[in-house]
Amino acid sequence: MSKSKPSDSKKSSTRVSPTPPDRRTRRSADIRERLFRAALALFSEKGFAETTVEDITNAADLGKGTFFNYFPSKDHILIAFSEMQISKLQAAVDNMREHDQPIPEFLTALSVRMTEEPARAPDVVRAILQAYLSTSTVRIAMRENQARGHGLLTQVVQLGQERGDFRRDLPAGELAQVFRQTVFGTLLMWSLFGDASLPDRIHTALNVLWQGLAPRDAASGSLPPRSS
Amino acid sequence: MSKSKPSDSKKSSTRVSPTPPDRRTRRSADIRERLFRAALALFSEKGFAETTVEDITNAADLGKGTFFNYFPSKDHILIAFSEMQISKLQAAVDNMREHDQPIPEFLTALSVRMTEEPARAPDVVRAILQAYLSTSTVRIAMRENQARGHGLLTQVVQLGQERGDFRRDLPAGELAQVFRQTVFGTLLMWSLFGDASLPDRIHTALNVLWQGLAPRDAASGSLPPRSS
Repeated sequence: MSKSKPSDSKKSSTRVSPTPPDRRTRRSADIRERLFRAALALFSEKGFAETTVEDITNAADLGKGTFFNYFPSKDHILIAFSEMQISKLQAAVDNMREHDQPIPEFLTALSVRMTEEPARAPDVVRAILQAYLSTSTVRIAMRENQARGHGLLTQVVQLGQERGDFRRDLPAGELAQVFRQTVFGTLLMWSLFGDASLPDRIHTALNVLWQGLAPRDAASGSLPPRSS
Repeated sequence: MSKSKPSDSKKSSTRVSPTPPDRRTRRSADIRERLFRAALALFSEKGFAETTVEDITNAADLGKGTFFNYFPSKDHILIAFSEMQISKLQAAVDNMREHDQPIPEFLTALSVRMTEEPARAPDVVRAILQAYLSTSTVRIAMRENQARGHGLLTQVVQLGQERGDFRRDLPAGELAQVFRQTVFGTLLMWSLFGDASLPDRIHTALNVLWQGLAPRDAASGSLPPRSS
């Protein structure tokens, strides 16, 4: 993947923060981005626990002290990762309202896209999940991101219910929760037993999920009539 | 929850190991059980990280050194927990073949039963998942248990496919994997955001899953005809 530059507007949705206005702020965002990318690359190469802050600043060609001007700790790289994911989700949801793509299709594409980066590094996924599970401040920050993510997904599911893509016998919030459990359960098991490619696992899990979430009558409507 | 005694044969399926034959071995199994139960109670009360080996031996009314005759480390309590779960699964699968209960019903009851103990302690669930995610020997032991669990569940799903309970367009192993991802994803998200009871979450997730795993024609077959 190419390193983002301030002029690289097409890649801006994958940046940690939107392109800032003046040169000084832009430079600052750029350094933060370099540290972030170097850290993720190192986590996947040698593992989260084994990566030191010095490894990160060396890889980013910066002084060690620089790191702490941008991130209070190594854990905060993981929070930034989670914030980046939420921004991607927000951007996708904003876009979605303008198109009439079926919601299951939209969510499958989104899930594959959002797990593309994790798919390169089971170790980063394990590090993020471990940070979630720990009792530190990371968990609280992660929880807030999760709550935002849940809110956004609930809106998407609601729209899917209105359009007749999803069953209505369960509240949108519960279906959104089942969707998140499916994606995170797939990520968890894959990060532990990486014996198949993550996109394949996501596709299989969502194939089953969409049939499970289909309106009870529509589920059969798309099938050829039985010949008996 | 009652503490198991050697005479308490009804509870034997929840014991770490089956009732052994002679008195000395029985006493040894009994001490192991006391340490195990005391440890789990403490993990849920004060947290895994905050519980010391001394806390455990104090609660079990044993000398501190005793602990290491039974468990090489505190982590090994979690391995024992996972082994206990696999034994429950094995016993249930052995039983299942004698009855003709529909497989989805069987798996729902089993999931609720197997998560009854975790449901009392999100902290234990987080500790177990953290141990899974860590790179220690625990993870390797856990992986072996997971592989056994996966093998057993694949047999169950295969039987469900033969009986017409489950769709056959995907291999049994993949459906078993989706089932495990669903249960572990539900456990993970619940342990992080314990804002609903675990059994409710399991029921909702499996409600969706069974529709997702139903044979494509049978999914509609059980529905009343549309009146339009």
